[in-house]
Amino acid sequence: MTPTVEGGPEALLPDFPRGPLHAYRARASFSWKELALFWEGEDILRFKKTIFSALESDPLFAHSPEAQLSLEKYRELNFLRCRRIFEYDFLSVEDVFRSPLKVSALVHCLGMYDWSLATKYLLHVLVFGSAVYNSGSERHFKYIQKLLNMEIFGCFALTEISHGSNTKAIRTTAHYDPATKEFIIHSPDFEAAKFWVGNMGKTATHAVVFAQLHMPGGQCHGLHPFVVQIRDPKTLLPMPGVMVGDIGKKLGQNGLDNGFAMFQQVRIPHQNLLNRTGDVTPDGSYLSPFKDVRQRFGASLGGLSLGRVCIMGMSVVNLQLAVSIALRFSATRRQFGPTEEEEVPVLEYQLQQWRLLPYLAAAFALDHFSKSLFLDLVELQQGLQGEERSARQAELAQEIHALASAGKPLASWTAQQGIQECREACGGHGYLAMNRLGVLRDDNDPNCTYEGDNNVLLQQTSNYLLGLLERRVRDGACFQSPLKTVDFLEAYPDILNQRFTASSIADCLDSVVPLAAYEWLVCYLLRESYQKLNQEKRSGSNDFEARNNCQVYYCRPLALAFMELTVVRRFHKYTHQPGVPPPLRAVLGRLSALYALWALSQHTAVLYQGGYFSGEQAGKVVESAILTLCSQLKDDAVALVDVIAPPDFVLDSPIGRADGELYKNLWSSILQGSNVLDRASWWPEFSYNKPIIGRLKSKL
Amino acid sequence: MTPTVEGGPEALLPDFPRGPLHAYRARASFSWKELALFWEGEDILRFKKTIFSALESDPLFAHSPEAQLSLEKYRELNFLRCRRIFEYDFLSVEDVFRSPLKVSALVHCLGMYDWSLATKYLLHVLVFGSAVYNSGSERHFKYIQKLLNMEIFGCFALTEISHGSNTKAIRTTAHYDPATKEFIIHSPDFEAAKFWVGNMGKTATHAVVFAQLHMPGGQCHGLHPFVVQIRDPKTLLPMPGVMVGDIGKKLGQNGLDNGFAMFQQVRIPHQNLLNRTGDVTPDGSYLSPFKDVRQRFGASLGGLSLGRVCIMGMSVVNLQLAVSIALRFSATRRQFGPTEEEEVPVLEYQLQQWRLLPYLAAAFALDHFSKSLFLDLVELQQGLQGEERSARQAELAQEIHALASAGKPLASWTAQQGIQECREACGGHGYLAMNRLGVLRDDNDPNCTYEGDNNVLLQQTSNYLLGLLERRVRDGACFQSPLKTVDFLEAYPDILNQRFTASSIADCLDSVVPLAAYEWLVCYLLRESYQKLNQEKRSGSNDFEARNNCQVYYCRPLALAFMELTVVRRFHKYTHQPGVPPPLRAVLGRLSALYALWALSQHTAVLYQGGYFSGEQAGKVVESAILTLCSQLKDDAVALVDVIAPPDFVLDSPIGRADGELYKNLWSSILQGSNVLDRASWWPEFSYNKPIIGRLKSKL
Repeated sequence: MTPTVEGGPEALLPDFPRGPLHAYRARASFSWKELALFWEGEDILRFKKTIFSALESDPLFAHSPEAQLSLEKYRELNFLRCRRIFEYDFLSVEDVFRSPLKVSALVHCLGMYDWSLATKYLLHVLVFGSAVYNSGSERHFKYIQKLLNMEIFGCFALTEISHGSNTKAIRTTAHYDPATKEFIIHSPDFEAAKFWVGNMGKTATHAVVFAQLHMPGGQCHGLHPFVVQIRDPKTLLPMPGVMVGDIGKKLGQNGLDNGFAMFQQVRIPHQNLLNRTGDVTPDGSYLSPFKDVRQRFGASLGGLSLGRVCIMGMSVVNLQLAVSIALRFSATRRQFGPTEEEEVPVLEYQLQQWRLLPYLAAAFALDHFSKSLFLDLVELQQGLQGEERSARQAELAQEIHALASAGKPLASWTAQQGIQECREACGGHGYLAMNRLGVLRDDNDPNCTYEGDNNVLLQQTSNYLLGLLERRVRDGACFQSPLKTVDFLEAYPDILNQRFTASSIADCLDSVVPLAAYEWLVCYLLRESYQKLNQEKRSGSNDFEARNNCQVYYCRPLALAFMELTVVRRFHKYTHQPGVPPPLRAVLGRLSALYALWALSQHTAVLYQGGYFSGEQAGKVVESAILTLCSQLKDDAVALVDVIAPPDFVLDSPIGRADGELYKNLWSSILQGSNVLDRASWWPEFSYNKPIIGRLKSKL
Repeated sequence: MTPTVEGGPEALLPDFPRGPLHAYRARASFSWKELALFWEGEDILRFKKTIFSALESDPLFAHSPEAQLSLEKYRELNFLRCRRIFEYDFLSVEDVFRSPLKVSALVHCLGMYDWSLATKYLLHVLVFGSAVYNSGSERHFKYIQKLLNMEIFGCFALTEISHGSNTKAIRTTAHYDPATKEFIIHSPDFEAAKFWVGNMGKTATHAVVFAQLHMPGGQCHGLHPFVVQIRDPKTLLPMPGVMVGDIGKKLGQNGLDNGFAMFQQVRIPHQNLLNRTGDVTPDGSYLSPFKDVRQRFGASLGGLSLGRVCIMGMSVVNLQLAVSIALRFSATRRQFGPTEEEEVPVLEYQLQQWRLLPYLAAAFALDHFSKSLFLDLVELQQGLQGEERSARQAELAQEIHALASAGKPLASWTAQQGIQECREACGGHGYLAMNRLGVLRDDNDPNCTYEGDNNVLLQQTSNYLLGLLERRVRDGACFQSPLKTVDFLEAYPDILNQRFTASSIADCLDSVVPLAAYEWLVCYLLRESYQKLNQEKRSGSNDFEARNNCQVYYCRPLALAFMELTVVRRFHKYTHQPGVPPPLRAVLGRLSALYALWALSQHTAVLYQGGYFSGEQAGKVVESAILTLCSQLKDDAVALVDVIAPPDFVLDSPIGRADGELYKNLWSSILQGSNVLDRASWWPEFSYNKPIIGRLKSKL
């Protein structure tokens, strides 16, 4: 049973200390506690509070001045914390199946504390674990038991130093030797070294290694996953033939040990092939449930969808943390005013509202979307585990693949840009490491790259949409999909004839207006992309060139616009459902409208270019509506942050603390630093060893 | 005399080693050596090479694995390197006056190596030094001599913990005591502590402190600068009454010790007032050459223009380094291809070209602009030193202030976004610390904030333009300025009637088309901003509110568009002048057109909204022209990088080395790291101390 925090909602959501933020809290249009309960549900709120309280009470999780931690020490501490999570055992295997959202809640709680911890845990339990579980068969389940006991430590080894996006070109080989019933894992040269593998640097004992499977007759069956032992669990020394090491310092997440490995004819037992999508009999025959290599390849990498959906959620968490810090700062930092005597909080400036509040709205809209997509994925996975191979399952898998492939770019970019804006919006204090915006930026950054480079991933989504249109044109197939994200395209000729009709700001204060605009936009970009692609092909480009030459102004914005539309539509439905408590309707409606209009306004050029907008007023109405919504939301901003911000201990930012005592918190944190007031140890280098000016000039 | 590298141009610009980048170099349309000589001039090239060679030969500058350096150690090393620069004495005071561009060349060379070093040196010599020189009088020149000998170490203390942008609200006080002929410097509370002051944390012995000057009669004369000794040069211990310390770790530039100081009734001699813009007689009367406080305040902070122009240059250097790394990577990294066997360099992808080449063009256009603005500023300063107070001087000062105030935001944001794009364009390898893109991002980031927050600064520029229009409307004054950046506005009614007429891609391949579009854009945004401001005032807003409510969609884009126009116009003139060697004309013309069109394309929405663009073709022609220019420039990209990239030792990025041996360089750098292949020192924590799963569950 999941442990719980005791007491009623009051104990679960205690009041904040009264302080400089009180004025904004008092002006909020709604109760933050009511929204928190509606948004998360009491069960998840209790679960998160349990985790946060455990971390805060445990000295192992005390914040250390990490400025001073060496890589080695940080990695040790991160390992110890990861091990401690196993001792808390926040979530049993049964809980996972009963309440899948708790899995992401656990990862998010650990990540809010420190992403190095969350990713170390996630890569071991979920990525290594689900690779074994989903790609293997019963004979491999022993590894699951061992990883849950931490007898072994796992990693997922796909990318190589010279290949990441183009996984098909991975060069590690696995030759089957029927004489000994072994696979021989081999890296032909250092360019084929496995690289960037999280947990591989110092900790992992076992890796799921992807290698090209070669049969004794010489045939290559493409990429397959194998469990390869890389270190001895008793000593953590490398296994014979394995050269394994640490790739060194990264821009962020330095508690996690990313590593490399080269294999010198490493022999592993026959049964270590994860054989769900392709198997080798002991005597050396190849068997696959799939007809062609392409289909099998797709299925063997299918597990990556989960990774992308996870990253959406992680990015949203980073955005939530950043806007929490920046908005509490903005509500308490005063600068300039109508008179020289009176200074106003910087949140009162329209410019500051416009810089930050759309990201607050995005943090809510994308959070809702990423949770709902996660639940769609759970449904899909449960179907797959049940061996359900219906046409609907296949279509659902494709649709989720398309959504995850654009959702990750949208969420990770929105977070990356939002964090940077928050950093700048906090001025110099945002540049101080202790205020955490730098760590958030650095830790979020790889979300744009791993599990598929954002720009490459977007092509999966545009290809999905172009494929649907092609089937429609060629075979008259309907636009419909299990989650109904593409069903509106059925009306595309009509939609393309629609025009923007809102003429006043009031018309635009609901997300229904941007929703209609987005539908037109997606139809337009889809038609343009399709025509451009065919034009490229007619002019003699091969398929590779033709697709490459359609990305910049066609397929890339198409994928992003489709994704934004899907997020906006889901959030619109959610905020307009009858189940929303009446006191929350206004604020949620504004968040929905603001996110939708703001995201849409990045496409204003195309809306004009394609004729949906015409005349000066169209653009101006949208701009004015955005500013109006910002102004309506600014008094709710602090209360909205109270809903999404973790406790102060976890947020770990003096300028973002819930009491709003900006300067007191900052000043005391400064004075708590090490050697703050001490004279530099190297003072004689200044005071005694004076330079002789120009002494070295003759050496030039 | 400036030391020089011996030998002819061949020794100055040796060939690059033949390697994987050769194919692109061979396809370049021009000689990189010819462009380097034309771009920098032989004198500057020799000067830079002298500095780079000195750093590379000196073990003190050997790159250390800074991942392992503690703050304390990094600051020590950075101080030792700064002291060593004095021993090299690269630039004598006479050189400074003879060739002012060498000052920025020196700062840029040090910054390319490490910005912590450059800023430490710059803050001491140039910022502290020029504050004393420009704000003081002869009695203060002794400090200049002492700082040049490093008898003392300087810092510039303006901002406080609770005030940065609103400098007028600075709260440190200076009361004059005629009895002892002393000023009493005092911090009323910790919120008035000087904060963020570079060099103050550990090193500085003397500070230029800005404080509100109070006379014995009680009158306050506003902010004035004072030289305050904060540490004893013999011991580096704080002076009595001074509490001085280190603000701790920042997102970047951690070799520089930023600090804070609180003053407890610290008495300093009467003569320590820097008295150029306001003086106190020994018996306590206030004298000023300026009529009102406002004017004097403006003059006393006038020195900040130099800082802003410097930051433009620093930002450009960061952009140059980042695009150098990313383009060499892109020319050697191969991924995917028309067939499964053949992979192509990622630079061949239109999407990758579009992501990177506009930033390469920006690196050239902004470099040219920042150098030319620096020379304008030198002219201004020389005039001011000559006590020239003509009307032209005043207008020139205003114009340069407007350009520096928007130039810093444009350059620092372009660099920040460009570095992020470069980081992502290098995929996972861009996220590896050793490849340096993270350090560049972190070190460039404060350029967006210090010496004036970007968004706040832009208001200086829009206010300048609105002021000119107001004078025109009210008094019929002409639009004209010493540097002629606003003279085109004289024709604004005609310009507003113009429309985009280019109908083919070919029409747009020269910067003359975007120049015309920019002129319309600035006229349109100026008129719109002016009308909006008056409308806000008519509807009852006070001046403060009215201006605040015009920023988002009016004054902010106005200032940026005006700045971009000015950069585009100067670069257009430069690249189209008769003095350009014929073999360089094509490539320079393309850079000019690409930067101009790409920057303009960020305003497409407004161009449509205001009616300059109409119909689908206008936007499409611009988009196609951008892609055409990218495709024309991609074979020149490596040679263009060869012009701007420093030597490998200084660029310090394995994936960006001039030989293009991407994987060999990366692999050998990985293996040179410390403890790469070592077992973790904490291995028994995994192998022996196994977790008892759920042991702590009862504690939850």
